[in-house]
Amino acid sequence: MNKYGHMRTIFFCLIFCISYNSNGQTINKTAYDYVNPLIGTQRMGHVFPGATVPFGMVQLSPDTDTLQYEVDGKYNKDVYKYCAGYQYEDKTIVGFSHTHFSGTGHSDLGDFLIMPTQGPIQLNPGTAQNPENGYRSKFSHATEKATPGYYKVDLEDHNITAEMTASARVGVHKYTFHEAGPSHIILDLMHGIYNYEDKNVWTFVQVKDEYTVTGYRQTNGWARNRVVYFALRFSKPISNYGCAKYDKKEVYRGFWGKFDQKTNFPEQAGKQLRMYFDFNMAQDEALEIQMALSSVSPAGALANLGAETSSKNFDQVKADAKKLWDSELAKVTMKGAEDDMVNFYTALYHALLTPIIYQDADGKYKGLDQNIHEAKGFKNYTIFSLWDTYRALHPLFNVIQPKRNNDMIQSMMAHYKQSAMHMLPVWSHYANENWCMIGYHSVSVIADAIMKDVFAGDANAALEACATTARNRKFDGLGYYMDLGYIPEDKSGSSVSKVLEFAYDDWCIHEMAKKLGRYDIMKEFSARINNFKNVFDPAVGFMRPKLADGSFKKEFDPLDTHGQGFIEGNAWNYSLYVPQDVPALITLLGGKAKFEKYLDDLFNNELPDKYFAQTEDITRDGIIGNYVHGNEPSHHVAYLYNWTDSPWKTQEKVRMIIKNQYKNGPDGLSGNDDCGQMSAWYLFTAMGFYPVCPGSDQYQLGSPLVESASIQLENGKTFSIKVKNQGPKNVYVKSITWMGYPWKEKYINHSMIQQGGELVFEMSAKK
Amino acid sequence: MNKYGHMRTIFFCLIFCISYNSNGQTINKTAYDYVNPLIGTQRMGHVFPGATVPFGMVQLSPDTDTLQYEVDGKYNKDVYKYCAGYQYEDKTIVGFSHTHFSGTGHSDLGDFLIMPTQGPIQLNPGTAQNPENGYRSKFSHATEKATPGYYKVDLEDHNITAEMTASARVGVHKYTFHEAGPSHIILDLMHGIYNYEDKNVWTFVQVKDEYTVTGYRQTNGWARNRVVYFALRFSKPISNYGCAKYDKKEVYRGFWGKFDQKTNFPEQAGKQLRMYFDFNMAQDEALEIQMALSSVSPAGALANLGAETSSKNFDQVKADAKKLWDSELAKVTMKGAEDDMVNFYTALYHALLTPIIYQDADGKYKGLDQNIHEAKGFKNYTIFSLWDTYRALHPLFNVIQPKRNNDMIQSMMAHYKQSAMHMLPVWSHYANENWCMIGYHSVSVIADAIMKDVFAGDANAALEACATTARNRKFDGLGYYMDLGYIPEDKSGSSVSKVLEFAYDDWCIHEMAKKLGRYDIMKEFSARINNFKNVFDPAVGFMRPKLADGSFKKEFDPLDTHGQGFIEGNAWNYSLYVPQDVPALITLLGGKAKFEKYLDDLFNNELPDKYFAQTEDITRDGIIGNYVHGNEPSHHVAYLYNWTDSPWKTQEKVRMIIKNQYKNGPDGLSGNDDCGQMSAWYLFTAMGFYPVCPGSDQYQLGSPLVESASIQLENGKTFSIKVKNQGPKNVYVKSITWMGYPWKEKYINHSMIQQGGELVFEMSAKK
Repeated sequence: MNKYGHMRTIFFCLIFCISYNSNGQTINKTAYDYVNPLIGTQRMGHVFPGATVPFGMVQLSPDTDTLQYEVDGKYNKDVYKYCAGYQYEDKTIVGFSHTHFSGTGHSDLGDFLIMPTQGPIQLNPGTAQNPENGYRSKFSHATEKATPGYYKVDLEDHNITAEMTASARVGVHKYTFHEAGPSHIILDLMHGIYNYEDKNVWTFVQVKDEYTVTGYRQTNGWARNRVVYFALRFSKPISNYGCAKYDKKEVYRGFWGKFDQKTNFPEQAGKQLRMYFDFNMAQDEALEIQMALSSVSPAGALANLGAETSSKNFDQVKADAKKLWDSELAKVTMKGAEDDMVNFYTALYHALLTPIIYQDADGKYKGLDQNIHEAKGFKNYTIFSLWDTYRALHPLFNVIQPKRNNDMIQSMMAHYKQSAMHMLPVWSHYANENWCMIGYHSVSVIADAIMKDVFAGDANAALEACATTARNRKFDGLGYYMDLGYIPEDKSGSSVSKVLEFAYDDWCIHEMAKKLGRYDIMKEFSARINNFKNVFDPAVGFMRPKLADGSFKKEFDPLDTHGQGFIEGNAWNYSLYVPQDVPALITLLGGKAKFEKYLDDLFNNELPDKYFAQTEDITRDGIIGNYVHGNEPSHHVAYLYNWTDSPWKTQEKVRMIIKNQYKNGPDGLSGNDDCGQMSAWYLFTAMGFYPVCPGSDQYQLGSPLVESASIQLENGKTFSIKVKNQGPKNVYVKSITWMGYPWKEKYINHSMIQQGGELVFEMSAKK
Repeated sequence: MNKYGHMRTIFFCLIFCISYNSNGQTINKTAYDYVNPLIGTQRMGHVFPGATVPFGMVQLSPDTDTLQYEVDGKYNKDVYKYCAGYQYEDKTIVGFSHTHFSGTGHSDLGDFLIMPTQGPIQLNPGTAQNPENGYRSKFSHATEKATPGYYKVDLEDHNITAEMTASARVGVHKYTFHEAGPSHIILDLMHGIYNYEDKNVWTFVQVKDEYTVTGYRQTNGWARNRVVYFALRFSKPISNYGCAKYDKKEVYRGFWGKFDQKTNFPEQAGKQLRMYFDFNMAQDEALEIQMALSSVSPAGALANLGAETSSKNFDQVKADAKKLWDSELAKVTMKGAEDDMVNFYTALYHALLTPIIYQDADGKYKGLDQNIHEAKGFKNYTIFSLWDTYRALHPLFNVIQPKRNNDMIQSMMAHYKQSAMHMLPVWSHYANENWCMIGYHSVSVIADAIMKDVFAGDANAALEACATTARNRKFDGLGYYMDLGYIPEDKSGSSVSKVLEFAYDDWCIHEMAKKLGRYDIMKEFSARINNFKNVFDPAVGFMRPKLADGSFKKEFDPLDTHGQGFIEGNAWNYSLYVPQDVPALITLLGGKAKFEKYLDDLFNNELPDKYFAQTEDITRDGIIGNYVHGNEPSHHVAYLYNWTDSPWKTQEKVRMIIKNQYKNGPDGLSGNDDCGQMSAWYLFTAMGFYPVCPGSDQYQLGSPLVESASIQLENGKTFSIKVKNQGPKNVYVKSITWMGYPWKEKYINHSMIQQGGELVFEMSAKK
C-alpha cells in the first residue's frame, strides 16, 4: 500500500539544488524564483500562500483562522478577512485545508482541514488567543517558506515541520515529527471558510483499510448545494482512530446506537464530525498524507489519487509541481527592476490559479443538475468570478492561454446547459451559481474569444446561449431593463451599475451576432446597447438612478458608494463605464475637454474619509484621489485619456497606479486580487497595453513598466515588447515602432499579437 | 413531450373485461382476481394497499397519516402504526407517496408525496381531525379499489378520482377532476414515513420545462445516509408553479435572496420544501403524472422514465403491471376453499414485493460506499429484512424464484464488498445497513442457496464473506461470543437470542464449508455451532441469560419478553430455537416425552394479559396459548412435533395457526407481514411442507390446507401437491404418496421438488 518510499531518489534534489548556493540564495533566478505567494496575504489581497499547481483543483494552504459567520440576522464582519483562510499578521495556524479561493471578496470552501499534533488528543481548534486549548499551533514567518506548489512552516506547539505540495487534484502533506511519541492527525470535517452552524449539510467517512479513508462533505454555503468527495492515504498504517460528533441536536441514530462508534469504527455520518488518526512516530520521522478530491464520488477521488500521486512521494510530487509552474511561467519572459520582476511574476502566478480544473482524471464531474457529466473534447473548469475576470483575466488568457480559455468557455456552455435558469454563469463555483455581483459577463468572455478567433466550439450555439441569458426576465432587474430601457432603483437596487453593464454585455452580443451573420439577434440587441444613455442625467453630469415613474432619484451623492444605484463604485467612477462606446460617453459628458477634466478631477480630488469607510474590499491605499483601483469598475478608466488630446495622462496614471497599488510584500495588494483580475490588470499594464473593451480586438496602449517582455504564443510565434530608455521617471512614451516601422495608433490589435513581432517603446521623462 | 394520449387503445380493455359480467363480478377468476392488497392494512399487518409490480422499486400508495416521530428523547408510539403509511380505519388520505415497506415493524421511506387539490392552495397536510385545514382529503372504502398494480379511490374533499399504477421504477398517477377549474398538484418533499424534524437532510428540485421536474430527497433516518432522485413528468403543461420553504431556521441564502424564489422559480434547495403545480382542468379531465425514481441521479430517473413508461399512458402501464402480476402469480396454482384462495394468493402477492429491485434500467445504483456501481451479471436488490426472511421467504424463493434469489445473494455480496464493516447485510435498505434485529442471517440465505444448488455465483467467495462477517468482533456481542461461547447479558442485551441465532448461522457456515471442502473454515466454526448449549439452564429447563461472571442472571421470568435476554420472544418460545440440531435440543429439554410436553404447554397455557402488553408487533389474536406466531422466532415451532412420537400434533397445530392467524379481511394479518415472511410461512404451510432449518435440504411435512397446488419450476418441471379428502376437520394426514409410491418420511427433500412430481396427501379427521 505504501508506495511512497521505494521510488525515492536524490536525483531531483541534485538537479534542482545546483542553482542555489550554500546560503540558499539563487544564483540564476528563474521566473519561479521571483514568485512570492505571500504577496497579498495581508489585509485585503485575500490570496492564499499554500501549495497548488496552475489552475489546480486543490489549493492546500494553512488556515490561520476562519471566524464563524453567523446567520439569522447576525453577520460577523471579521469573517471577511478570512476569505482565503490566511491572514499574514496572525500568530497561529489552525491547520491545512484543501480548497481556497484566490483573492475573492466573499468566500466558501476550506474543505477537509488536516492538522498534526502530539500529546493528549485535542479535538477542538482552540482560539488564536489560547492556541494551547486546542489543536492549533503557533507559528512564525521565520520558518515559513512559500513558493509555487510548495509551502513549509514549523508548527511550534507540536514541534512538527509541515510541508505541503499538490498535483491537480491531490494535496500532499509531509509532517516531520521532531519528537518521538504517540502522534495524531486530525481531520476536521466541521472546519470551513465562511462557516456557520448549519453550513455542513452532511459529512460521511469510511475508513477503508489501515492506510485509506474516503468520504464527503456536503455544504450549503455560497454554493448552495455543494458536495466534495475525498480519498486520503497515509504513508504508514493507522494504529488507532476515532471520531467525535458535535451535532447540537443528536442526529437520529437508529440501531447504529448499538455500536461503540467512537473508536476504530469504520463508518461515520453526521453534520459535525471530527476524526483523528493515531500513529507512533520516531524522532524526525515524516508522515506523508495524500488527499485527493473529486466532485463525483469517493471512487473518483481514489482514481484521481491513483492517476496523479499514489506512486510518488512528497518530493516527487513537489518536483512535478515545480515543473508545471516552470512551464506555465515560461510563457511570459519579463525583464525589469528586481521588485518589478517579483511583482510581475507573482501577478502571473496569481493569474494562473483561477478558474480551477473541475473534473476527475477521467473527465467526469458533477453538474448543476446534480448529474455526473463527462467533459468531452474539453477540460471542465469552475470558479468563474466573471464580474471581475471578464475585464482583463480572460482577455489575458486569450493571449497566453487560448486553449484553456476555450475550455473555460466550453465549461460555461456546459453550465448553461445544466442550468435550470437557462443562463450562462454569473459567478459560479463547484457546479453552483452563487449569483454574486451583476451583469451576465460570460457574454463578454465569449464575445472576446469569438472576436479574437480563440473559441473553437460551436459559436452559433454560444451566441444563442448569450442571447438566451440576456433575455431572462427573472434575472436581477433584467425584465425592467428590457421593458423600460433602464431599471427603476426603487424596484431593483444597484440599478445604474446593472444598466451600464447590461448595455456593455448587449453590445458584446450585438458584435458576435454581426460577425456570425445572425442579423435577427443583432437587431434585437441593437436597441439595447444604448441603454446607458437612459441613466445619464445631464443636469448633474453623472449616471444617476431613475425611479419607476421615470424621474431621477432625488437624493443623490456621486461620491457615495452605497444606496446611490451603484455597486462597488460611486457615480464618479461608474459613470465612465461605457467601454463599448467611449465617443458617445464623451458626448454625454460634454465633449473631449470636459471629459478630460472629468478624468482629472477623478484622479485628483481626494475622496473624503467619510466615504472611504463605505468603500468595499480595499485599503485606503487602494484609492487615488477618488479613483478606486481596488475595485474593478474603474480598471479601464486610466486608459480613457487615450480618447482625449492628452494620452500622456494615461501613461502617467497607469505608471502611478502600478507603483502605488502593487508592492513586493505581504501587504502588496491594495484590494482583493479577485481570482486574478487585479493581477491581470498589472500584467497587461506592465507590458504597455490593456483591453479596455473586451469583445473588440483592440488593446489601448499605455506605458510599459518592463524593460522587455516576450510572450510565447500557442501558435509557436513570439510577441515581444522592448522598452528603450526605461526608468522610474521615464513614464512617457516618446515613440513606438512595430516590426521596425513607426506605430502611430493609440492601440494595437489582437491580430498583431497573434502574428508575432516586436513592439518597441521609446520612453521619456517628458510629457 | 406529452406522449400519453396518442397510443391509447381500447384493445386491452376488451381483452380483460370479458371475464367480468355486468355486475363486475368475475366469472373465471384468475390468481390476480383472488389477491386482495387490503388484507393486512388494518392494525398490525403493516402492508400497503397501493400499486406496485413484483419486486418493484416503486410502491405508489396512499398515506393516511404518518404522525411525526420525535427525537431527543421523545418517541411517538403511534408512528409505529404507520410503518406502511396506511391504516384501514383512517378516514382521510394525505396523499400518495412512492416508496413503502411491506409489513415492517420499523420504517422509513414515504418519498415524494403527491396530492391533487382544487380551490385555494393549501400547502400543509392538515390533520385527520380537521382535513379541511390542509390538502388532505376524506375518503371512503366504498370508492376504494386495490388490485395488484392498481389502486383507485375518490378524494371526496376535492371531488377527484385518484388512480395509481406502476412499472418497476415509475409510479403513474391519474387524477380525474370532476369539476372544472384551477387545480393543483402538491409535491410535498417534507412528507415521509417515520419522519421527524431533521430527517430531511436536503432536498433539491429543478423544473426542467413545462412538463418535467427533477430533484432529490436526502434523509437521515432508519437508513442513515439515503438519497433518492426523481424525475416527474406531467401529461399537460404546468401553467404556474411555486415553492414554500418551512425550514425552522433560515437556510443560508447567499445571493439567491435577490430572486423571488416563491413563484415560477425553477431551482429550489433546502431541508423543508413543498412545491405546487397549477393546471386548468376541464370537467372530468384527467391529469396523468409519471414519477420515476433512481438512486443514481436525476438523469438516471429520467432514463428510467424513458425506458419504462414515457411512451405509455396510464391504462397501458396498468395493463403491463397486470401482465407482470399474472405471470408471477401463475408460478403457483392453488385450489381450495374460496377464502383460502384469497388468503393464499394474497400471501403469494405479499411474498413477491420484497426485496425490491435497486438499480436503474441501465444496471447502475448507489452503493454503501457512496459510489455508483453497475450490477454486472445480476440484478441488484435491496430491502433485506433478514432476521425475518431467512426463515421461509428466501427458502420459498429457492423454490419459486431461484433466479431472483441468486440475484439477491449477488446483491448481498455487493453490499459486503461496499461495507466499511466488511459484513454481509443484517437488515439493509437503499444502500444502507440499519443494523435492525440480530444475527447475521445473510449466512443462512447463502447457505440455503448453496446447499440447494441455487447459487450460481462464486460460492467460495460467498463462504469467505460469511466467515468474515461471523468474525467481526465489533458486531453486537460477537466478540464475547467468540471468546466465551456466550454473550454476557450485562455486556450486550438480548444475549440469549443472539447466541442461539449466531450458533444457527455458524452451523450454516459449517455446512457450506463442508460442502465446498473448506475444512479450515469448517473446523473454525465447528467449535461454535454448539454454543446454544452454553445458555441452557437445566435447573429451570430454559435457555437463560448468563452474566460476565459466568453465572446465570438471577431475575428471570420465562414468560416475559423484555429484559430477559431475548428479543421479540420470551424464553418459552426462544428456548426452542435450535433448528440445526433438534435432537440435541430434545436432549437438553429432557428427552422426547418432556419435549412434547414442553410443546403442549407452549400451545395450551394461555399467556397472562400482563405479558401480552410487552409482546411487540402483534395483536392479541397473534398468540395461541403462549405461542407467538406474529413474531418470527417461533415460526418453526409447530413443526417440532415431527421429532416427537406425535407428528399429528404438528398437523393439528399448523392447521389451527393457519386458520387463526390468516383471514380474508383488512385485519387478516395478526402481526407484521415482515417483508413477506409471514406470508411465506403461510404459503409453505398451506402446501403441506416447511423449511424448519434453512441450509439443510429438508422440508418438514405438515398438513396441507389446499385441495391442490402446483409449482411451475424455472427448470420447466412441475411439483404438485394433491390432497384427497380435504376438509376443515380433516387436518390429519392419513397417508402420503410420492410419484405414486408410499412416502413414509416426515420430510421431503429439495431435490424431490426440483425433479418435479406429485405429492399426494390423504387426509382424515382422525389423529
